[in-house]
Amino acid sequence: MVTKNQIKLVVSLKQKKYRSQHGLFVVEGEKTVNELLQWGVKPFQIVVDDPLRANDFEGAELVSKPILKQMSSLTSPSGVLGVFYIPEPKNTEDSDWVLALDAVRDPGNLGTIIRLCDWFGIKQLICSNDTVDCYNPKVLQATMGSIARVNLVYTDLEDFLENTEVPVYGAFMDGEAVYSQKIPVNGILVMGNEANGISATVAEHITERISIPQFGEATTESLNVATATAILLNEIRRSLI
Amino acid sequence: MVTKNQIKLVVSLKQKKYRSQHGLFVVEGEKTVNELLQWGVKPFQIVVDDPLRANDFEGAELVSKPILKQMSSLTSPSGVLGVFYIPEPKNTEDSDWVLALDAVRDPGNLGTIIRLCDWFGIKQLICSNDTVDCYNPKVLQATMGSIARVNLVYTDLEDFLENTEVPVYGAFMDGEAVYSQKIPVNGILVMGNEANGISATVAEHITERISIPQFGEATTESLNVATATAILLNEIRRSLI
Repeated sequence: MVTKNQIKLVVSLKQKKYRSQHGLFVVEGEKTVNELLQWGVKPFQIVVDDPLRANDFEGAELVSKPILKQMSSLTSPSGVLGVFYIPEPKNTEDSDWVLALDAVRDPGNLGTIIRLCDWFGIKQLICSNDTVDCYNPKVLQATMGSIARVNLVYTDLEDFLENTEVPVYGAFMDGEAVYSQKIPVNGILVMGNEANGISATVAEHITERISIPQFGEATTESLNVATATAILLNEIRRSLI
Repeated sequence: MVTKNQIKLVVSLKQKKYRSQHGLFVVEGEKTVNELLQWGVKPFQIVVDDPLRANDFEGAELVSKPILKQMSSLTSPSGVLGVFYIPEPKNTEDSDWVLALDAVRDPGNLGTIIRLCDWFGIKQLICSNDTVDCYNPKVLQATMGSIARVNLVYTDLEDFLENTEVPVYGAFMDGEAVYSQKIPVNGILVMGNEANGISATVAEHITERISIPQFGEATTESLNVATATAILLNEIRRSLI
């Protein structure tokens, strides 16, 4: 049995305030719930709306479809909803490349970037405190299970960069073409906000300003931050082969 | 004065059927309207809801805010709406790289891909007939003005590939690592559907199967089609430097 208070708790977790207060977040869909379990993220509660699925998850609770719909953030709920404990961030390591985001605000962009980190084996993602919350349902929808495999830390980005000894690369429209760079084995890559790029105060800590060359007609359009991140992480990884 | 019938026409253009029937499409926002004008796309009607802006566009009609809101697809209309004639596609040329899409369905992905073509100077984008319509408002919102600079043709992709003499590259999860390829000066790059990749019948025409190496833990997740396109277009352009 799921009580009214439990439903209220799950619904409240759509808001960051309550996610922080309870240390919990919600994912939906059998595949993502399974991946989080498989990668050791600790479940608080799993609910399903189909008796045939109740045994697929240890300790899952069976609820009616209308109850699951009440708990869900989706227009068409997928039938499996998991509430998980927000993992403790591990200590950051800079023995490999680290990605840092300065005020990325779009949930879809953050979701895509987490998935890219997973693909390219970037274990450490540092987000400025004003970057969109990674446990936002729209972010989780775009990351799929990747969130379980990337160590994500929210912190004061300026402090973090102040205290690092590795080279700090930043993407700027007017940076040096990335193709001509000698890319080191470790470093930090900073990507900026969708509209404003890297902020002036963060830019002071950048040691190498890089850019992705433009081949079309020169226009004022820039690349979207998620596609630019895709290209730059690929450049970093290909350079070591 | 904008008549009721004119409002009805603009609203009908949210649907592909009416866009095809009238040969017209709608964009919103001063910047995009300006770019389309600047790049020679022929306007049918431009409306603005602010007297101060009425003179910014030749022949623009001033309407009230509620009327513009009726015409708009946006929750918060930007105050400038342009109806344009759908440009005649130019003859396709294969003297440079051509991008071809096989059943890409997500409007945001197509919009991002058009913007990538613009950035990387890919002049020719071939879409299978079951690819999402490029004049869909959600596509246009993601392309910005890039749609004016890319020649976009909807066609039977199998026929098109059947009749080409240039190498045809296709992105597959199990293709050869793109880094080790000797990339020619011209060719066609085929990207597949979000869920199913390149269809079996289109795959028969692919001469080179390529992939983006994965560096993280091996999982079943693939890259999103727009981020994969970003990486592969960058690979094609960097190879010629």
